[in-house]
Parts: sequence; C-alpha cells; structure tokens
Amino acid sequence: MQVKAGDLLENINYPSDLKKLSEEQLEQVCQELRQYIIDVVSVNGGHFAASLGVVELTVALHYVLNTPYDQLVWDVGHQAYGHKILTGRRQVFDTNRIYGGISGFPKRAESEYDTFGVGHSSTSISAALGMAVASQYKGEIDRQHVAVIGDGSMTAGMAFEALNHAGIENSNLLVILNDNNMAIDPNVGALKDYLTSITVSKPYNRFRDDIAGVLAKISSIGPDAYNLVQKIEKSIKGTLLKRSNFFEALKFRYFGPIDGHDVKNLVKVLNDLRDIPGPKLLHCITTKGKGYALAEKDQTKWHAPGLFDKITGEIKKATYDKPQPPKYQDVFGHSIIELAEANPKIMGITPAMPSGCSLNLMMKAMPNRAFDVGIAEQHAVTFSAGLATQGLIPFCNIYSSFMQRAYDQVIHDVAIQKLNVIFCLDRAGIAGADGPTHHGAYDLAFMRCIPNMTVSAPMNEEELRNLMYTAQQDDMGPFVIRYPRGNGVMVDWQRPFKAIPVGKGRKLTDGEDVAILTIGHVGNQAVKAIQELNTEGYYPAHYDMRFVKPLDEVLLHEVFSKFGKVITVEDGCLEGGMGSAILEFMADNNYNAQVIRLGIPDRIIEHGEQPELWAECGYDAAAIATQVRAIGIKSSTTTIAS
Amino acid sequence: MQVKAGDLLENINYPSDLKKLSEEQLEQVCQELRQYIIDVVSVNGGHFAASLGVVELTVALHYVLNTPYDQLVWDVGHQAYGHKILTGRRQVFDTNRIYGGISGFPKRAESEYDTFGVGHSSTSISAALGMAVASQYKGEIDRQHVAVIGDGSMTAGMAFEALNHAGIENSNLLVILNDNNMAIDPNVGALKDYLTSITVSKPYNRFRDDIAGVLAKISSIGPDAYNLVQKIEKSIKGTLLKRSNFFEALKFRYFGPIDGHDVKNLVKVLNDLRDIPGPKLLHCITTKGKGYALAEKDQTKWHAPGLFDKITGEIKKATYDKPQPPKYQDVFGHSIIELAEANPKIMGITPAMPSGCSLNLMMKAMPNRAFDVGIAEQHAVTFSAGLATQGLIPFCNIYSSFMQRAYDQVIHDVAIQKLNVIFCLDRAGIAGADGPTHHGAYDLAFMRCIPNMTVSAPMNEEELRNLMYTAQQDDMGPFVIRYPRGNGVMVDWQRPFKAIPVGKGRKLTDGEDVAILTIGHVGNQAVKAIQELNTEGYYPAHYDMRFVKPLDEVLLHEVFSKFGKVITVEDGCLEGGMGSAILEFMADNNYNAQVIRLGIPDRIIEHGEQPELWAECGYDAAAIATQVRAIGIKSSTTTIAS
Repeated sequence: MQVKAGDLLENINYPSDLKKLSEEQLEQVCQELRQYIIDVVSVNGGHFAASLGVVELTVALHYVLNTPYDQLVWDVGHQAYGHKILTGRRQVFDTNRIYGGISGFPKRAESEYDTFGVGHSSTSISAALGMAVASQYKGEIDRQHVAVIGDGSMTAGMAFEALNHAGIENSNLLVILNDNNMAIDPNVGALKDYLTSITVSKPYNRFRDDIAGVLAKISSIGPDAYNLVQKIEKSIKGTLLKRSNFFEALKFRYFGPIDGHDVKNLVKVLNDLRDIPGPKLLHCITTKGKGYALAEKDQTKWHAPGLFDKITGEIKKATYDKPQPPKYQDVFGHSIIELAEANPKIMGITPAMPSGCSLNLMMKAMPNRAFDVGIAEQHAVTFSAGLATQGLIPFCNIYSSFMQRAYDQVIHDVAIQKLNVIFCLDRAGIAGADGPTHHGAYDLAFMRCIPNMTVSAPMNEEELRNLMYTAQQDDMGPFVIRYPRGNGVMVDWQRPFKAIPVGKGRKLTDGEDVAILTIGHVGNQAVKAIQELNTEGYYPAHYDMRFVKPLDEVLLHEVFSKFGKVITVEDGCLEGGMGSAILEFMADNNYNAQVIRLGIPDRIIEHGEQPELWAECGYDAAAIATQVRAIGIKSSTTTIAS
Repeated sequence: MQVKAGDLLENINYPSDLKKLSEEQLEQVCQELRQYIIDVVSVNGGHFAASLGVVELTVALHYVLNTPYDQLVWDVGHQAYGHKILTGRRQVFDTNRIYGGISGFPKRAESEYDTFGVGHSSTSISAALGMAVASQYKGEIDRQHVAVIGDGSMTAGMAFEALNHAGIENSNLLVILNDNNMAIDPNVGALKDYLTSITVSKPYNRFRDDIAGVLAKISSIGPDAYNLVQKIEKSIKGTLLKRSNFFEALKFRYFGPIDGHDVKNLVKVLNDLRDIPGPKLLHCITTKGKGYALAEKDQTKWHAPGLFDKITGEIKKATYDKPQPPKYQDVFGHSIIELAEANPKIMGITPAMPSGCSLNLMMKAMPNRAFDVGIAEQHAVTFSAGLATQGLIPFCNIYSSFMQRAYDQVIHDVAIQKLNVIFCLDRAGIAGADGPTHHGAYDLAFMRCIPNMTVSAPMNEEELRNLMYTAQQDDMGPFVIRYPRGNGVMVDWQRPFKAIPVGKGRKLTDGEDVAILTIGHVGNQAVKAIQELNTEGYYPAHYDMRFVKPLDEVLLHEVFSKFGKVITVEDGCLEGGMGSAILEFMADNNYNAQVIRLGIPDRIIEHGEQPELWAECGYDAAAIATQVRAIGIKSSTTTIAS
C-alpha cells in the first residue's frame, strides 16, 4: 500500500530538495517525516521508536551536510528510516524489510548515501574514523565525517577503542551521541549514569561560565584577590577542565548536551561545528519514540512493535483458533527460572537483550542472579567465565550473530579453561527480516572447531528444555545450545526435565534407502517432507543429531552401515558445519556414501521471512523432498530389487 | 640449571612464608625476587621487563592479601613471574615455557593461586568482577578481588565494557592500573595521554588541596569573598569533581597516582583499600624493566629478549656459518613498504603489535600510512573497513589468535560488504612457547566459512610476497594471508613480485599412489618427508594448495581422478579446516578416496617449541612419512601390480 507523504515531504526525493527549503520550513518537514514513518511502519512493520527519536537530527544533518560527499554513518541503523526516506527511498519505503525490498538497515549496495552497512552496534566511530583518515590522506580537508551513535551502543568496547584512537588522530570527525537512555531495553552501566549526571546538572558550558562569573566578582575585590583568581583560573583551565569530561579525557572536544528535537538549533550547532577541526562529540538528548505518545511511554515495547493501529495504538496480534507453540526465547526464559529455583548455582547473563531473549523474566524473578551487562558481548562471556570459576553455572544468552563479537572470549576464557558456561545462542540460523547482519549462519562451524566444547541444537521446545537441564549439571564444561528466532512446534511444551546423554542423537523415523540427518529446529522441515514423501512411496529414515559436537558415533555407524545415501540438513553454513563434521566422521572411519549437504550456501543471504529464505537456500520441506526424490528409490522398486 | 635464590627468597615457598617477614624486610625480598627473575630469565628466556616492573606490587599484594582465598587476576600474565615464584613455583621456575614445564602465563590447572588463565589482554576486570559478584552472591563479604591491568591493556574495549558494568555492581573489586606507558611497544591512544596528564601534573588529591588553599586565602579577604568562595567550593565539589576523573565518571573510586616501586607505601595503601567497599581503582606508576638499566631504557627490546648475559646485557644470538632465512614477519614488514611505494592506496594497520609483526618498518618509513591503533582488534578491523570504503587498500596485520577478538567485525564490516581489506594473520598455527592462548589453531576453520572471503597461506617467503602482491590488486575483496611465527625457508627471498591466480594451487612433486595436499609453511615438512620417503621407494605426489578458499577445483579433480589415497596436512585444527574443505569437495563431486587428515587435533595443545608440538600433533616430517608408509605402496610393488 502506497502511503501519501505530506506536502513538503512528497517533493523531497533527495537532500538537494531538502536544502531548497528555508530553515523555518524544517519543523514542518520533521512533522511530516515523523507522520510518514508512523503511517508506513504501522501497516508494514519494522523498527519504530528509534527512527522517531532522530527525525530532527536526520533532517538537520541532511540540511547542513553535503551528503553523500560528506559522510554520515548511522550506528546500528534501525534509526535510519528517516535517512532512507530523505535519500531516494521514500517511494520504496513500503518494501522495507520485505523479501526483495529495501533493507531495514543502511546498506552500501542500496544507496551511495549509505556509507557503511550496519546492523550490529558500535561500529560507526571506527568506520567514520577510517573515512576521515582516508580523506585526510587524500587531502579532502573540507569533507565532513559524522557518526551518529546511541548511548546504548556506547557501552560496547569497540566504541571506546575507536574513541581512544580517534582522540589522537587530527581528522575531521564528529561523533553525535544520541542519548535517549535506551538500547532496545533501558541502557545500563556506569556510563549511562554519567551521561545522566551531565544532563540533569547544569550544562557543562554554562557551568564553566558560572565559575568565570563568580571569579570575576572576586577579582574586583582588589589586586591580591585578582592575582589569586588568576591562579585559580589557570589551574582550573590548565588542568582540571581539560579532563573534567569523560570524552575530553579522550581528547574529544565535547559540546552539549543539547535538545535533539530542536531542529533549528541543531542546524545552527551543526553549522558551527563544521569549521572546528579534529575529533569532536556533540551530545544530543532525544526521546526514543518521540511524537508517538505510547512509544515514548513504553520504548522497549515500541522498539519494533509489529503492525499496529496508529490511531488507537493497538498492536495487531494474529489470532488463532487454537493455542500456538511458544517462541523458543520464551521457553528459555521460563525454563531458566524453573532450573534456577532448583539449582542455586545457576546465574543468567545477557548483553542488552533481556526482552529479546526473555531473560527479563529471570531478572524480575531473581534480580540478584540475572544480569544485563549492556551491549558488551566480550565482557558478558568473560564475566560468565569469572562466575564459573567460583562454581556457579552461568547461562550466557547471546544472539548467534552477536556471539561473533565474543569469539576469542569463548576460546580463551571459557574453552581453554573448560569452564562450565552455557551459551544459549538465540536467533541461530536464518534470522529473517533483519537480514545478513543478523543471520546466525556460522555458529555451528565456528563453535565446533573449539576443543572442550559441546555444541547442540534442540529440534523443539521439549528438547530445548532438556538440553538446558543437561547443560546445567555439574562438570559439563562449555556447552552451546543454539536455537532459532520464532516459534517452536509444541503447544504442550512445559514437560518435566529429562537429562540427555551428551553427544546422543535420536532416530525419529525408521526408513530405507535414504537417511536424513538433521540438527535443530530445521528437523521439523524434514518431518514435513517425509510426511509428503511417504504418500509418494518414499520412506527415508530421519535422525535428529541433537549434537554437532560430540557427534553420536554409534548412531553414525548405524547410519553409514545401513544407508548409501545420506542427506544432511542444517540451518547454518555449509562450509564447516554439521554436514562437514559428518564427512570428517566418514573419512576417519572409511565410509563411502553419497552425501548431500543442505544448509546455508556460501554467499550472503539477504532479508526476508524465514520460510522464504529457507526455500531460497534449499532446505525447507519442499527442497528436502526434492532431494530425496532425486536420489531415492520408491519403496516398491526397492522391495523388488532386494 | 638451578639458580640460587637470595637468603629471604629461598625460604619463601608460599605467601604464608612471606607474611612472616616484617614490613622492613620487604625491600630486600623485592631485591632478591628481581635478581632471581634476572638470573633465571637470562639463562632460560621468557618475558622479562614486565615482571621486573611489578616486583614491588607482587610482593605487596601477596603480603597484604589472603591469597588464594582473596583472588588476584593478572591481566595478560606475562608480568606474573614474581607471582609464580612466590606461590609454590620457585623450584620449577627454570622450566618456564619449556615443553612439559610450567606455563609462561597464569594457568588454573597449575596452581590455585592462578585464579584465571590469561595470555590475551584485557580480560582481568571481567573475570575478577565475575568472581566478586559470585562472592557477593555467596555472602563472602570479606573476600578481596583484585585485577592488575596495564595501561596498554586498558585500550581494549572489553576492559571498558567491564568497567562500565563494574561501576554499577557494588561488589568488592579493586582494579590496579599498572601504568608504565607500554604495551609490548609504547602504548598509544588518547587514554594514555590522559593518564600521563594525571601523572605529570600534581597528583589529583594534592590539586584539590591546592585549590582549597587558594580559596581559603580569598575567603580571608572579607565576608563577600567568603560567600563567593563557598559558592565556588560547592560548585566544584558538587558537580565538577564528581566527574573530573575518567574512572570516577565510570563510578569507580579513584586513588593515586602512587609510586608502584615503593613497596612499603604499597602495603599501606593496599591495607587501607581493603576496607573500602565497592569498585575502586588504584593508579600505580611503574617502570617496565625496573631495576635492569638496559631494560628500562629499551623496553620493547627487553619485553622478551631471549637469552642474555646478565652482566653485560649482551643478547645472545645464535650464530650460523651461512645466511639464514628471514622471519615471515620481516618479509611482511619489508614487502608492504615495497608494495606501498608502488601503490598509493595501500595502508598498514596493527593493533599494538608493530614490532611483533614488523609494521614498525612502515610506520617509520611512511608514518601517515601506517597505524598502531592500540590493543583494539575490533577497531583495527572496522577502521580498516572504513579506509577501504574510500578506495584504499589496508593491510590489517593481526596475530591469528588475536583475530578471534575481531571475528564479528570481519564478517559484519568487511565480508558482508565485500570490502578490500587484507588480513595478514601472523603467528598462525602452533605458536610455540606462548602456548594454548597464542596458538593460531582455528583461523582456517573460522575464516573459510565466511562468504566473499579468500583464505590463503604461503609455503615460503616468495609465496608470502606474491600473495601480498596478489591481494593488493583492485577488487580482490576480503583476503586472508596466514603465516606462522618464526623463520621461512629461503635465504634469497626478495624476488620480484608475481601475481598468483586466486584459488590456484600448485603441484610441487609428481608422484604415484599417494597424494599429499598441504597448505602453508607446513608444506616444507612434507617436502622433507618426501625426500626421506624417496630413499625408501615411496613416491608420493605433493600439492601446495595455497588457498583454502576458494579451493583449486581443477587441481582437486586431477588429484581425485588419479589418486585413491590422499593425505591432507595443515598447521591448523582438524575440525572444519582445509582437510574438511577437501572432504566437502569430494562429497559434492562424488569422489571416493581414502583421506587421512593431519593437523591440530581436537584438544588444547600446551606450550613448547614448534617442532616439538608439530611432532606431538602428528604432522611434522616424520609423522607425514609414517602416514605415507602406512597406506602407501613402495614403487617397485606398484610397478608390478600395474
């Protein structure tokens, strides 16, 4: 559905159109842009509150900067809808996050205005600094480089690494700190409190003025006082003020805090900052969800609310005749509490995803045993390792693709020391509409090569519960449980816990001729395929491997003794994944068999609904069935042949 | 050789012995401990300057703390020799870093005093916070938790992530900042300058006193002045001072800076700090190499100098009759300059390893094109990606095991966007005496599963140069070149550059019956094995794959058409490595062959010399030859049979 834009906005296709307007018209542009985002997202879905919060900043930046020559890097990028709309993508904005449509994040291939692809947080300062240093090297001294980063993203170490480097490069870099006190959930950590303390006290510059005023009054008392005051001023200016601000300690010039919703002032300030050389930081205070009252009030809920009635604010939920299976994340969230109630060693850790992984349930129920450590995957893992050294058993829940941020910590701090840390990797496999940055495609490959590691994936809710139960037993060592975004398959999922022998798969369906080996939730696609195939006379066997490491060698000996044709299916990359592990088993045990490996192929998979992408990658039920038909023999034939 | 310890030290086996001494005797203990380190390291090798720099700190900590109940975490750990000597390992200290001997780093399996295994930097605060939170949870409120971290390690993002979290946990954590201005090379970045500014100016607390003194003088002028001064004081105390320190902004109580070589004062301060609850940071100024004049003067050289004459300071170099092959790192260091002279797009980036990877050569020759960004692998990669967006071609040189720190950035910021960033992974494969934390065991597996990535390894110096030349051509996309620690095999290595077709291996030796496929430097072990085997009548073929991704499929079709027995050899993990990639090729192309994969097995490999560990892992020349003999047929037999 094409949504109509406001009078000014409908004539803005590119920033050049925006620049034709007077400063007085910008408020109306902001209002129209905000309304357009509300209109489209309410019927189309997507991230919501973040983009509303930076409407004025977006308009001011494109008004003042000479984009795309001047380079604008959005951190994370789910706040960049306004940017997309103002840079050539208003007409296709209703295809946002849809299969074949535009990406929900800035993407270099999509527009020259998208200077850097994002999705994960805290990369913007590093990337913008790279651009700024390149410009300096090329002698493009007039070129502006701006990174817009939220206070939530500022908790991640790499943002600090970039500040530490940028502070000593004299390149033209402006960091805009979009301070709204939020990540997806409320921001946490000491830095947040610090930023708040700047905000609630008098603004920094006014404070300096105040001191100066008082000192001037003292000076007027007489020459002795004047001299003393000179001494004080010199001391304060020379020593204290230089390091009186967190960012100035890192050699950034700090400006602010200013109101991030005052577009006219933003234009003025951004114009002023253009001419100030070196690294500088502008602290803007904004409200996530600004302009949509419900979103301002419950910012986590409205981060990405799905479809909603923009007038009433009612969030549309699909209705079903019968109960539906839960989300895997909720199975995790409820089960960890059950387990923790029985086992006092259990702790829960999430890096800034309490509502995304449902650890918020435990944080509420057991606040001293569940920790949101901020966007800080590296710390989350090593903090968990520290807990584990003391005999505790941490469940460290990190989205699969975000776990890439803490790979060294998994190896160096957990696996080498064989500590009992349980990694629950949510959003494993194809993640869906968030696209390439969020697909958890590589975890089976990058985890299974680590010694001491157990790597598992549940096929359904009961299996997830039982794997969690298994993992929290004593002395299990590092233990990965990976599961996908979205719903499982069982309505009646809250069954009693049962331990699973580590490295033990299970046979789901006896069969002949062809064996299908699956890992995790995608096994349900195989079940569906087999139902269909059975009606056609194909009877493949189905094994749920459960563990990629250690492999169930007993099961595999059975499979390769019996079957000459094997299909492996995984919701993960083919290079080095489960199929590859099974080929290693075959080579090490001198088995020959035809093996077809289904999984994520060796290319970047774009965004879309999970079923669309499973089909594209060739491992949904239909694709599995096609493979069986291609290599299998119908049962009647087999019977005759034998 | 057993070195004799000083009179006091020879009676200290554990901290309990140290505690029996009077405070007055501690200086002598320090002197003896320092001498013992000099005596042993000079004849035994190992890290040197870092441990000398923390002698007083080490003695004071074990004197004041109740270790191992109180928990002491050393960051990186190459400064922990004194700690090892005082905690039960004096007698075996001469086995340090030797195959079968004690580890050069703290290691949990080695001693209960080693609370956390280290090797990579910047993990200590996270780990100690985990321990502190665990103690709090268990009600062990008297337990102390101390992380000792260098200012170099403080540049890594995960240290900041940990501070940000620790600031809001009210647990009993003391961070000791060992500020010596050094990583292995001089420390870089804005934070370093900030720490220096605290140090060179008057100490923070004295500064506060100064202001107070001046204000008191003004107050005495009269009642108006007095009132104004009150106002100033209130403002300063209430607002400015609270956030006048970087660490206090993160809600740490900051103490210092103090002299880290004054053992008596250290004991006093550490005793005082015991009773202060919550997160606190003690800033100690130390000199790396303290007490050994040459080391104080050239701290990078004396970080790990090898064997030396402790009296003259002459570093012992092996002498050879004829010229020796260069180190791979120096081939990189010289070649990047040659390439950069011809190609203005080339830039060089290292995260704090300029002397370790030899980028220091380019930093000296082309200071505006080569960057040491500090211990900040994540930033190093994304900064490189930023440069690449501007058409530049960065060589980002990161040790293989440290690259694990930036895995997400490789995927998210480089590979997905297909940017031209060249990753030179030094210390790939078995790293040697540094042990498990430093082996670059996993890179082939974790890199080859990433789409758009080229993954290569040179077998010798000329190949390294040619791969570098190949990678810096336009539009090559992300390109990994991994090579080991140590020397190559060519004396005459500085040959003209030649481009290598991407994904093209090479046949080194024609043969029959068995084919050996190798990747990288380990190929030289196969050459050696084949020389030996030929004398026995075995004639295996040898192919240098050069690329793990893309695989040379033409070459592999040739191999599997001709050979029924294949041995793959790699200096990397077997799970998901090159051998696994070749099995995938076989499965996808329906080849059957007996494949034996040699490489790093699925367990943690301890420290030792590279040849010792290659032998242990079963892929040195002798092991390769053994495998060929086991499956091969002697040539005469073959001729008869055919």
